[in-house]
Amino acid sequence: MTVLDSREPRAAVGSPAVAVEPGSGAATREDVLAAARRSRAAAADLAVLPRAAKDAALLAMADALESAADAILQANAKDVAAAEATGTPASLIDRLRLTGPRVTAMAGGLRDLAALPDPVGEVVRGSVLPNGLRLQQIRVPMGVVAIIYEARPNVTADAAGIALKSGNAALLRGSGSAYHSNRALVDVLAAAAERAGLPADAVQLVPGTDRESVKYLMTARGLVDVIIPRGGAGLIQAVVNGSTVPVIETGVGNCHVYVDAAADLDMALELLINSKARRPSVCNAAENVLVHADVAERFVPAAVAALAEAGVTVHADAAFAALVPDATTVVPATETDWDTEYLSLDIAAAVVPDLDAAVAHIAAHGSGHTEAIVTGSLAAADRFVARVDAAAVMVNASTAFTDGGEFGFGAEIGISTQKLHARGPMGLAELTSTKYVVTGAGQVRASS
Amino acid sequence: MTVLDSREPRAAVGSPAVAVEPGSGAATREDVLAAARRSRAAAADLAVLPRAAKDAALLAMADALESAADAILQANAKDVAAAEATGTPASLIDRLRLTGPRVTAMAGGLRDLAALPDPVGEVVRGSVLPNGLRLQQIRVPMGVVAIIYEARPNVTADAAGIALKSGNAALLRGSGSAYHSNRALVDVLAAAAERAGLPADAVQLVPGTDRESVKYLMTARGLVDVIIPRGGAGLIQAVVNGSTVPVIETGVGNCHVYVDAAADLDMALELLINSKARRPSVCNAAENVLVHADVAERFVPAAVAALAEAGVTVHADAAFAALVPDATTVVPATETDWDTEYLSLDIAAAVVPDLDAAVAHIAAHGSGHTEAIVTGSLAAADRFVARVDAAAVMVNASTAFTDGGEFGFGAEIGISTQKLHARGPMGLAELTSTKYVVTGAGQVRASS
Repeated sequence: MTVLDSREPRAAVGSPAVAVEPGSGAATREDVLAAARRSRAAAADLAVLPRAAKDAALLAMADALESAADAILQANAKDVAAAEATGTPASLIDRLRLTGPRVTAMAGGLRDLAALPDPVGEVVRGSVLPNGLRLQQIRVPMGVVAIIYEARPNVTADAAGIALKSGNAALLRGSGSAYHSNRALVDVLAAAAERAGLPADAVQLVPGTDRESVKYLMTARGLVDVIIPRGGAGLIQAVVNGSTVPVIETGVGNCHVYVDAAADLDMALELLINSKARRPSVCNAAENVLVHADVAERFVPAAVAALAEAGVTVHADAAFAALVPDATTVVPATETDWDTEYLSLDIAAAVVPDLDAAVAHIAAHGSGHTEAIVTGSLAAADRFVARVDAAAVMVNASTAFTDGGEFGFGAEIGISTQKLHARGPMGLAELTSTKYVVTGAGQVRASS
Repeated sequence: MTVLDSREPRAAVGSPAVAVEPGSGAATREDVLAAARRSRAAAADLAVLPRAAKDAALLAMADALESAADAILQANAKDVAAAEATGTPASLIDRLRLTGPRVTAMAGGLRDLAALPDPVGEVVRGSVLPNGLRLQQIRVPMGVVAIIYEARPNVTADAAGIALKSGNAALLRGSGSAYHSNRALVDVLAAAAERAGLPADAVQLVPGTDRESVKYLMTARGLVDVIIPRGGAGLIQAVVNGSTVPVIETGVGNCHVYVDAAADLDMALELLINSKARRPSVCNAAENVLVHADVAERFVPAAVAALAEAGVTVHADAAFAALVPDATTVVPATETDWDTEYLSLDIAAAVVPDLDAAVAHIAAHGSGHTEAIVTGSLAAADRFVARVDAAAVMVNASTAFTDGGEFGFGAEIGISTQKLHARGPMGLAELTSTKYVVTGAGQVRASS
């Protein structure tokens, strides 16, 4: 079960941004810091809660969401009406809209979380030192986890639940366009958590929906332990550049499928179509296909036909285009195509002389998310796996499998594309830190 | 064995900074980025090296240091002479000075590293998914590790060795005052690494010794994978605030010893003196003692006498001072004392009404490094361990044990005081990331 699919559809390149809902308002630095301090105080209490208390709260929150469904949908209707009034595209309206089944799904996600093991308290390693000291490294919550997202309002419930299950206070900042929905959801969740005996501030919305309030949040180092931005590349870059709080970068996926000389070409075709067209708007979708020159003559015509059938526009380099039976069925790739995360039914396509050229192309243009090789050669697979620097490397498997649910983590807060702390799908354990506990009987350290 | 003791003596509060050696010069942004690109290229090669190749290089580097000892000492003599000419205090001159035995110790550190297991390639977890995909999470190098340090030139060899053993390219930025020493060391190390078959750029100095060159380094996101600042609080704050590259914060230790109502007071005295006075200039030294009111009357006089004998000045709050037999033997604590990392023979001292007050005091003033409780009560120990938020919590043990060598890690690059990625002493594994490798036979993901 995946309680949170971080690869929710995102805006394709060139889509207009959703306007900030003006009524939701500005906040002062002090407003934001005061909220962060409340989260910090709540985090101290949450850190020592046993699993049973957290699970009871998650179940109460699920029940509360279902009980309050009407009020939540009414709040959401305000957001949808405002978005429609400003001419927001239908695809974005669809992301914004909550329905009865979507509220039920949110509640189900919280119940799924209650059923997962608690990562807190796990002894990661332990030993007895030569001087008799007992050393244990124990998993502890991060503390205050801030999540900045542009996505659907159901992220609010999912993110709050994942943070809480891992013992953290959640400080949430959704889109201004979803303000009323998020406000209603957080009010319901926080009240239910409090009734279940948790701190009322275990789940909070960051005050304000203006850009300044995000800046205040990003510089609340010492109050906020980690910020996870989820959304388009622009949001993520802004957070990375402006934050003094540690950031986990998520989600930008410029993924490649490399069809090796030793590939089973029928398998390659199936993997390519699944990687590209299954859900083109998510970050684990393939945006590029690289074909080894030795099989290009056989593979390219079939690939172009299958991609066309799936509605995909191929942006081909000259060598690739030269092998297409009808050159009008592809468009010429420009330099920017190689670095573009289309999030749409488009793919960049190139012929490469060999595996190392594919690896070099990926090193130059990949985003470190997911890279796939299709090959029957063990040597080729090993070389690709060892040399491609990405969160996930697929051998004869669809890029679409990079997913916390598919990986069996039960829950996922996002897919990290950085190397520090967490890389790839992040589950509950990735929202924790550790603490060394050293127990002795009066040992002192010798002078040295 | 500890090949790198990150808790080298640091400048005490108020010590003059060592002047930058002017001859070492400025560098342009392009100089720094070009060096980072060379490190990146080297990192790609280092990542796939087997352990034997890395160990052979470490041994060759050790031999080369010993062979080139005269040239290294001559270069160091220039730095020492320049520092003396500018009136640098003797304690800082001592940190800067290399000697024959210190060069031998550096070589020994590299040989110790060769004997340690290779963290790269470790399968951190693995499973077979329901659809038959084989999932493995494999330890891989970070890539390019930059280390900014103010400390002794022997950090140059130690940091280069640790980075290399964990498969990373090292990009080193030492103090301007140690420029000639560091230049000579890196030249010797890089040449030896290259002769052993490693990329010549596996170990590099960051060009320039001016402040601007550090800024260029800190914003080389995408080229540099992590920056580890090692030094005083000012350096660390500057890097945290200015860096877009992920940072691991190290080393500031405002550590407390809490003497509980149920403490063995003889043990408490011994632990207090060892924690404070063993090496006052290192980050795991205690800077505060908190005494439970129930035992203060008995403990305070003995503690003050023992601290005085060890040469320690006590900065006492009113309640503590009131229990001192001769009030002239302590000085009154001011508000700033509680937040000061003295790094000297000083300690702040307070009486607290109970354990929770001690925990609250530590939450307000601690730096998240090491906190100790002395108690015979299991309940008190458990409560302190659960509620104190720090990298290491000691129960009846000296704060001085927070150390990679003492913890049995074999090598240590620093002590992280942040929660992201690594917390506490960082060994070889903490300089690595992971990669998911998913191996299939053509599996595609179902539509959902």
